[in-house]
Amino acid sequence: MTTQTVRPGEASRIAAPDEGISLDELRLAARNHGMPLEALRYDLTPPGLHYILVHYDIPYVATDSWRLTVDGRVDAPLELDLAALRARPRVELAVTLECAGNGRARLHPRPVSQPWLDEAVGTARWTGTPLAPLLAEAGLLDDAVDVVFTGMDHGTDRGVEQDYQRGLSVAEALGGELLLAYEMNGQPLPPQHGAPVRLVVPGWYGMASVKWLRGITVQDHRFTGFQNETAYRIKHDTDDAGVPVTGIRPRALMVPPGFPDFMTRRRIVDAGDVALYGRAWAGLATVSRVEVSVDGGRHWADADLGEQLGRYAWRSWSFDWRADTVGDVELVVRATDEHGDTQPVDQPWNTQGMANNMAQRVAASVR
Amino acid sequence: MTTQTVRPGEASRIAAPDEGISLDELRLAARNHGMPLEALRYDLTPPGLHYILVHYDIPYVATDSWRLTVDGRVDAPLELDLAALRARPRVELAVTLECAGNGRARLHPRPVSQPWLDEAVGTARWTGTPLAPLLAEAGLLDDAVDVVFTGMDHGTDRGVEQDYQRGLSVAEALGGELLLAYEMNGQPLPPQHGAPVRLVVPGWYGMASVKWLRGITVQDHRFTGFQNETAYRIKHDTDDAGVPVTGIRPRALMVPPGFPDFMTRRRIVDAGDVALYGRAWAGLATVSRVEVSVDGGRHWADADLGEQLGRYAWRSWSFDWRADTVGDVELVVRATDEHGDTQPVDQPWNTQGMANNMAQRVAASVR
Repeated sequence: MTTQTVRPGEASRIAAPDEGISLDELRLAARNHGMPLEALRYDLTPPGLHYILVHYDIPYVATDSWRLTVDGRVDAPLELDLAALRARPRVELAVTLECAGNGRARLHPRPVSQPWLDEAVGTARWTGTPLAPLLAEAGLLDDAVDVVFTGMDHGTDRGVEQDYQRGLSVAEALGGELLLAYEMNGQPLPPQHGAPVRLVVPGWYGMASVKWLRGITVQDHRFTGFQNETAYRIKHDTDDAGVPVTGIRPRALMVPPGFPDFMTRRRIVDAGDVALYGRAWAGLATVSRVEVSVDGGRHWADADLGEQLGRYAWRSWSFDWRADTVGDVELVVRATDEHGDTQPVDQPWNTQGMANNMAQRVAASVR
Repeated sequence: MTTQTVRPGEASRIAAPDEGISLDELRLAARNHGMPLEALRYDLTPPGLHYILVHYDIPYVATDSWRLTVDGRVDAPLELDLAALRARPRVELAVTLECAGNGRARLHPRPVSQPWLDEAVGTARWTGTPLAPLLAEAGLLDDAVDVVFTGMDHGTDRGVEQDYQRGLSVAEALGGELLLAYEMNGQPLPPQHGAPVRLVVPGWYGMASVKWLRGITVQDHRFTGFQNETAYRIKHDTDDAGVPVTGIRPRALMVPPGFPDFMTRRRIVDAGDVALYGRAWAGLATVSRVEVSVDGGRHWADADLGEQLGRYAWRSWSFDWRADTVGDVELVVRATDEHGDTQPVDQPWNTQGMANNMAQRVAASVR
C-alpha cells in the first residue's frame, strides 16, 4: 500500500511520463464515479448515474438532529432545522454540475488526484430554497467580505485537517440563484449527494456546491481555506499562486456510437447512417455552437442544437454521420459558447488538472 | 489511447510486475463503481451506492415495448410484458450481490479487467416474481439441460460479439429462490441495475443475475457461451479450462474507522475506544464467525455478530477496539461460514482474479 506523508500546503504530485495510474488514484476511482456517457440520453441524470466526488467519507447525518447555522458578520444569527428550511420559498432549478477535475487523467503529464477521463458530469433538477433571502434575513453587516460554507465531511488533504469548506464573495453568494437544496429530481437528497441539505451554485464547477452543509459563516476578510487557496486553483507551476476555479468552461460530449469492446471500450459501428448525439454546456454562458469532426479534428461540421433545459443546464445536440468508409476513425466534438470561447483540441495543461475542457475523442471501427 | 486486437477466445491479460493501472482499466473504473465502505452502515444499500458492473453499455429499454420470451425446450413458449410479469405472484428478498472480480486489483500480479479493490458489493431488497413457477408454466421438456438468460447489453469481449448471456443448469434455475426482479428497494429498477427486469440469483456472484433480461431459452445441451466458458471461471494458468464461478465465498468488510486522507485514503484515528463495525456474508451459507486483527493478522479476536437481514443477505458485526497506542496499525477482518470456510489472509490468486475473497486490510494512524 503506497502512502506518503505530506507537509501542510505541499504541492500536488504530477505523475512521471508513462507512469501508470497509481493505487492511490484507483482507490478514488473505485469510490467516486462518473456518468456512463450513454446516460447523456437523459435530460435529467438518474441519481446513481450522476457523477459523484466525495473528498473524504460520506457523513452519516441524522435528519432529525441536523441544523444549519448562519452566523458571523450578520445582524441576527439563524439556526434552522430541515422543517424550517422546507417551509421557506421553494425553487426548482435544472443544473448541470461538472467536477473541476474532469479530464485530468487525459493530461500528459498527469496530475495525480481523482483520475477523471471525460465523464464527471450530470444534470439534476434541484429543489430547495434560495440562499440570498436567507442571508438578507440574517442581515449582512457592512463589513461582510466572504461567505463560508462548511460541510460535515472531514479529512486531511496534503496535511491540512479540515471539514470541507468553500468561500464565496458576498457578490457571488447573493448574485447567482444559489440554492440550499434538499431534493434531487423530486426525491430527498441521496446520502452521496449531500443529504439532507447541500449548496448548489449554478454554473460553477462542483467544488462550490458544498454537500452535507452545516454552517454558513459571514466574515469580514477573504476566506483562505484549503479548498479555495490550494486545491481548486489553476496553477502553471508549483510556485504559481494560481487563479481560482469558478464557472464551468464550455464542453460537449457525445454518446459513443455503436457498441463497445469490454476491455478497451473501443466502439464498433456498422457502416451506414449513424445518428451522433449528446449534450453541451458552458456554465454561466449559453452554448451557441457544437461541431463534430469524424477525422480526428482535421475537418469540422456544425451539429444541430436542441433544447436547453434551463439557464444553467446542458442542451442537446445531434449530427448525422454518414459512416461509409470501413476502417478506424476518431470522432471529436467541441462546443463554443455565446462569447466565442471554444473548447480546445489540444490539452490546456495545469499542475492540478483543473477546468480542463479538452475536446472528447472517441475511437471507433466502422465495419 | 491503448487499444489491442483480441482473437476470439484469447486469454485475459495479466499485468507485468509493478505495472500501474492501465488506461483500459481506468476507463472501466470511471464508469462502474463500488460501494464506498462507509455505506456498510446501511442495512439496504441506496441504489447509487450499491456496486455496479456493466459489461457493455447500459441499454435504453422502452418499458412499453419490453417483452420477455420463454422458449426453447418447453411445452408452451411464453411472451410477457411488464404488466403480465407484475401480475404474477410477488416476492421480496434481501440479497447481497458481489462482483466475482471483487479484490482483483489487490492481486500480484494483477489480472487486467475491471480493477476492483474491496468494494464491489451491495445489498438490496429485490421485488419480483419467482422464476420456477414461470418455467413450470412453460413446461420444461424431459430433455431440458440448461436455461439460458439473455440480456439486452451488447458488445465484444476478447473478440467474441455477444448479447450478455449466462446459463444455469435446470437444477440451479429451479432450486434457489431465483427472482425476475422489477423493483429495487421499493422503486422501479434504475437503468444501471437492469431496468425494467433483471434476474436475481441469490447467493451467487453478480454475473449470474443477468440485467436487462429479454429472453429465457431452455436448451437440451450444456450452454457454452463466453460468460460461462471463458470469462467467469477460476483458472490457474492459460491452458486451464478452469472451474465455473458460482456461489459467493465468505467475506467481511469494515467501515474504515476515523477519517481519511483525501489522496491516500489512509485513516487517522483518535486514540481511545473505537467501535469497529461492518458486514459479513457468505453467499449460500451463513456467516458463523467474524474475527478482527489489529496487528496486521498476527493475533485475532472474535467480533460480535448481529442480525442477518435474510438468508441471502449480509449480517452486521461489531468489535470494540481499544486503540491505546499511538502509531501506525493495520486492521484486518475475516469471516468464516457455517461450513468452516474462512477467508484467506494471503491471496488466492487465479488468472482472471475471480472469487478472490482475501481479507480486507485497513491502514490507520492512531494519534
